[in-house]
Amino acid sequence: MIILMKKNASKEQIQSVVDVLGDHGLGANVSPGTEATVIGILGDKSKLGCIDLALMDGVDDCVPIMHSYKLASRDMCPQGRTVEIGGEVFGGEKLIVIGGPCAVENEESILQSAAGVKAAGATFLRGGAYKPRTSPYSFQGMEVEGLKLLRKAGDTYGLKVVSEIVAHEQLEDAAKYVDMIQIGARNMQNFQLLKEVGRSKIPVILKRGIANTIEEWLDAAEYILSEGNLNVVLCERGIRTFETATRNTLDVSAVPVVKERSCLPVIIDPSHAAGKMKYVKPLSLAGIAAGADGLIVEVHYNAKIAISDAAQQLSPQDFAELLAKVRELAPVVGRSL
Amino acid sequence: MIILMKKNASKEQIQSVVDVLGDHGLGANVSPGTEATVIGILGDKSKLGCIDLALMDGVDDCVPIMHSYKLASRDMCPQGRTVEIGGEVFGGEKLIVIGGPCAVENEESILQSAAGVKAAGATFLRGGAYKPRTSPYSFQGMEVEGLKLLRKAGDTYGLKVVSEIVAHEQLEDAAKYVDMIQIGARNMQNFQLLKEVGRSKIPVILKRGIANTIEEWLDAAEYILSEGNLNVVLCERGIRTFETATRNTLDVSAVPVVKERSCLPVIIDPSHAAGKMKYVKPLSLAGIAAGADGLIVEVHYNAKIAISDAAQQLSPQDFAELLAKVRELAPVVGRSL
Amino acid sequence: MIILMKKNASKEQIQSVVDVLGDHGLGANVSPGTEATVIGILGDKSKLGCIDLALMDGVDDCVPIMHSYKLASRDMCPQGRTVEIGGEVFGGEKLIVIGGPCAVENEESILQSAAGVKAAGATFLRGGAYKPRTSPYSFQGMEVEGLKLLRKAGDTYGLKVVSEIVAHEQLEDAAKYVDMIQIGARNMQNFQLLKEVGRSKIPVILKRGIANTIEEWLDAAEYILSEGNLNVVLCERGIRTFETATRNTLDVSAVPVVKERSCLPVIIDPSHAAGKMKYVKPLSLAGIAAGADGLIVEVHYNAKIAISDAAQQLSPQDFAELLAKVRELAPVVGRSL
Amino acid sequence: MIILMKKNASKEQIQSVVDVLGDHGLGANVSPGTEATVIGILGDKSKLGCIDLALMDGVDDCVPIMHSYKLASRDMCPQGRTVEIGGEVFGGEKLIVIGGPCAVENEESILQSAAGVKAAGATFLRGGAYKPRTSPYSFQGMEVEGLKLLRKAGDTYGLKVVSEIVAHEQLEDAAKYVDMIQIGARNMQNFQLLKEVGRSKIPVILKRGIANTIEEWLDAAEYILSEGNLNVVLCERGIRTFETATRNTLDVSAVPVVKERSCLPVIIDPSHAAGKMKYVKPLSLAGIAAGADGLIVEVHYNAKIAISDAAQQLSPQDFAELLAKVRELAPVVGRSL
Repeated sequence: MIILMKKNASKEQIQSVVDVLGDHGLGANVSPGTEATVIGILGDKSKLGCIDLALMDGVDDCVPIMHSYKLASRDMCPQGRTVEIGGEVFGGEKLIVIGGPCAVENEESILQSAAGVKAAGATFLRGGAYKPRTSPYSFQGMEVEGLKLLRKAGDTYGLKVVSEIVAHEQLEDAAKYVDMIQIGARNMQNFQLLKEVGRSKIPVILKRGIANTIEEWLDAAEYILSEGNLNVVLCERGIRTFETATRNTLDVSAVPVVKERSCLPVIIDPSHAAGKMKYVKPLSLAGIAAGADGLIVEVHYNAKIAISDAAQQLSPQDFAELLAKVRELAPVVGRSL
Repeated sequence: MIILMKKNASKEQIQSVVDVLGDHGLGANVSPGTEATVIGILGDKSKLGCIDLALMDGVDDCVPIMHSYKLASRDMCPQGRTVEIGGEVFGGEKLIVIGGPCAVENEESILQSAAGVKAAGATFLRGGAYKPRTSPYSFQGMEVEGLKLLRKAGDTYGLKVVSEIVAHEQLEDAAKYVDMIQIGARNMQNFQLLKEVGRSKIPVILKRGIANTIEEWLDAAEYILSEGNLNVVLCERGIRTFETATRNTLDVSAVPVVKERSCLPVIIDPSHAAGKMKYVKPLSLAGIAAGADGLIVEVHYNAKIAISDAAQQLSPQDFAELLAKVRELAPVVGRSL
Repeated sequence: MIILMKKNASKEQIQSVVDVLGDHGLGANVSPGTEATVIGILGDKSKLGCIDLALMDGVDDCVPIMHSYKLASRDMCPQGRTVEIGGEVFGGEKLIVIGGPCAVENEESILQSAAGVKAAGATFLRGGAYKPRTSPYSFQGMEVEGLKLLRKAGDTYGLKVVSEIVAHEQLEDAAKYVDMIQIGARNMQNFQLLKEVGRSKIPVILKRGIANTIEEWLDAAEYILSEGNLNVVLCERGIRTFETATRNTLDVSAVPVVKERSCLPVIIDPSHAAGKMKYVKPLSLAGIAAGADGLIVEVHYNAKIAISDAAQQLSPQDFAELLAKVRELAPVVGRSL
Repeated sequence: MIILMKKNASKEQIQSVVDVLGDHGLGANVSPGTEATVIGILGDKSKLGCIDLALMDGVDDCVPIMHSYKLASRDMCPQGRTVEIGGEVFGGEKLIVIGGPCAVENEESILQSAAGVKAAGATFLRGGAYKPRTSPYSFQGMEVEGLKLLRKAGDTYGLKVVSEIVAHEQLEDAAKYVDMIQIGARNMQNFQLLKEVGRSKIPVILKRGIANTIEEWLDAAEYILSEGNLNVVLCERGIRTFETATRNTLDVSAVPVVKERSCLPVIIDPSHAAGKMKYVKPLSLAGIAAGADGLIVEVHYNAKIAISDAAQQLSPQDFAELLAKVRELAPVVGRSL
């Protein structure tokens, strides 16, 4: 962190800042400038706690110059890091595609969707069992029964399975039935949940919060990593902006930014970003073209007819066509599917 | 909800929508227009689950015309609702002011801050014991020991005490030591936590998430209310925008909007909105002038010298001056302090 | 501006930055730190043109540490600056209130609205003659005929008049008929218009763009000031955020921020911020409580019945009630009306 | 537009709305519903002017159900529309690439950059002559001399040339020297400029404003189209969000949304969106993968050494490598380069 003093800061004010740093066991590097004096902080800044030096007389601003995350940083793993689940590798040369319905509804439905996902060439099946819903009056999911059906569908068609948990109490059940858990956008800063998942070692997809910066997202990943679980895959799923033509705005730039700052694999969720089925294909291709390591796409065997969980879910046929395009695109960015 | 059909939607497409509604036990009110056909949905829409009719052929858009919250709605309590804690009433004629440090640090510190809070004329003491921190390497709070010190400080000076919890496991301890809990912005959609707090009946301050709409905030309140806990006080604390001059942008308009749509008391947190001590006073006055029922302000007995938890914390003297101004302002909006 | 080098920047990379600065006639102040080397730039940075040093090898980031505006800066006028128009002073102890309809529609209408504005106690009349409209098919205003009617209404009731221009060609006509012009949010960065207005010396209200930072707003004011026109009054009218309950989000914090960074008077437009009549009163009071120098409010003599220009326009009676409240509030913040 | 009445609206209130519509020559289609009465408006709504019915007693909300643009709408040109300039076609099967420096600096520089742009395989040269600058103290461009140099460089290397204008006075000169003009993000709602450009028939690139919705962007295009100039190419260049890792957030979803709602060609500006050279390649590929008709990229022959106009400008070599990748990608989305 560096401290910018005001233009007219007095020598006494500058000295006060230096003294306060000293009180916290930190050194100071004072650089007088023509515009303003700049003070660099030397030493372990975690000693500052939630201190904010911006309060002190004569201080204009404080500028952080280092990331607060360490294990999530590219510096720690210049070659990148991969997450392997039963032979499937996130962050490798091969793209990973996850498909499946918004929610597990019943056995027939998840089996049929799984069949479609498998036929299209994906290797992971998704399906929500614990649904975070904005309103308490909306369907909250089948819970553990949903996990069991998901597992059965995965086993039947040779797919790995992934499902979201919204509270750490669900972790034990999830670990029994799924290969990978997902932490959703609303829980990206549920630090208690992050820590518990960190202690569990189970592979995890960490979605970006709709109003969180990339730095905050990597800080959230650090919560999991720092507890010893290195199996973290990031997922960009759109941020909240003023534009309403899409449910959220897919921040496709987040892919190269994450790749530069971090070593973690990053995938794209075009379904939640777009909120509309018709935009899923162009956003999927955009994400892969930008360097993403894979996709998580909502697919429902009967979206058109049943319309249950509809607007953003592809039919198995549309999903197969999408994957055919992804397969064509992959070599352009040095990947395969 | 009403469904807008596309301008050129066919009769068959319109009929399909009507049929699908029928399949879900819902009626349809079809209004042909010069521009487009509009279909109103009749019946209990919760039957739709997470169905999105926008997917269907010929459908242009779906427009919700009712709030999903019920108990939080002004319709349910046209006279407004109050939350009383030991004689102190949120939502009444008297404004409620909560003051105290960002975090409980040690006994001396919380006692001295409490003395300043009391002297200024506030009736509630705040102090963080469980701190939600962006980085896992930051100070995470004194936990239950912090709650005990907070209780002691409150008892010593005759102040009610309020503290944040970030996981439902903390609820039992919190209920022992505090008069009111706080759910922070990051947990506004931690639905598991909301439900548990709903079952507990403990008075709660529910802060707005930095990227949540007012509708989502009221939906979150509904989670607590619908479990039987009617002691909910809302708190506006700034939303995330592109402006960086302040930490967040205080959405002062949220006060009259909440007052119109809901019957819940609403207070303002100028400290987290501004992120800088120097803006706390004008924002506090703005909030009260807009109709807020009270304030929650960060106050530290020794902010200037100790600089621990500094930038947004007022000194007891500044806090007393602020409350003097609030006292002057209150009658203008029909309130007292 | 200071340059933050990457943690592992080489000596050669640091020297390259110093050399490039030297090529542009600038000095460099190199501060090695434990985390990263910081380079301060010495000299007149305007020589850098649109150079961006962030491109150079080894550079992590560039941080501006000085405002680019000078005349708009508080440093240039620590006592504040006032704008006087025929005895009415923006930025003085007395609050200034401007009222009037969205658009000048016809003679009777503007005369009646003026009567209401005068009766309520305001001293300025507003009315749009050149309307910036999102769609080319919307009413574009009465143009110069509207200005004449506005002048007549102002003269009839002893009110100063203010109207928006959207192109510099309108400046000559405007200067003939109005006391003060307004540059709207959409034209805040119409630099050609800003310069022409700067050369004209006519008093001007410069509204903040809906997506512009306070720094960009002050830079826009600098365009006018630097051409010699010091009669600039800023106007906060809401920014674009994700919240849709109000048309825009009134950034009430902008008032104290502007007051701290700049010496220019700043007023509030609650009508455009809210977009709904019912929120105009609480937002007006919030703005004044936060320290604003005045208000510009949409008022129409017949809003309820005629509904022309309706949703955000107050009736004269509502406007009079609002001003009565403002008059009560003013002394609390050391002002009068 | 449809009007949603409040749940408890009285028959009189409903009738009042119907009467007001009648006064404006509009019909009303009243649909009583179980939740609320919905009133559809029949007839030419442009008669409503800036009337907002939301003000009337008993009205809950007004919902627009039709776009205000007509010529920009896909309905008017289901097959899409192309813009041809000397054999180069925007919106055809072949992708169009525009390259060149931020600003024309001098003859040697623009000639060398043009050579690099040509060698890489692009067909259009860009270069700024009139620069819209946030601060009045920044370099404002070479103006007409810059246009002449740009023309010379284009002629020398057989490239079409495009340059931004920021005021309609520049249109005459621009029409003499360039093949296509650009309206920048800051002028997207400079309606005077849009109209003049509409009357001129010169091909134009219309960039999206950083805080403008796609609907507002199409409305802005309508200003040009409705004056008779159909040669409009849209350009997505990033929107303003809370994320600061990139200068703006490229809204890649805007490509399929524009393609669905409008018939106008749309290209991507990855340079301004990213603000950093290193992200230009992934964003370019993402834009093309999402269906964009082309790219406009900042290229400078000597970006690394001269650093003038640096951070977001590619070197000719990097640009050539980018185009090689685009050439590989094009067939995947049914295009060529």
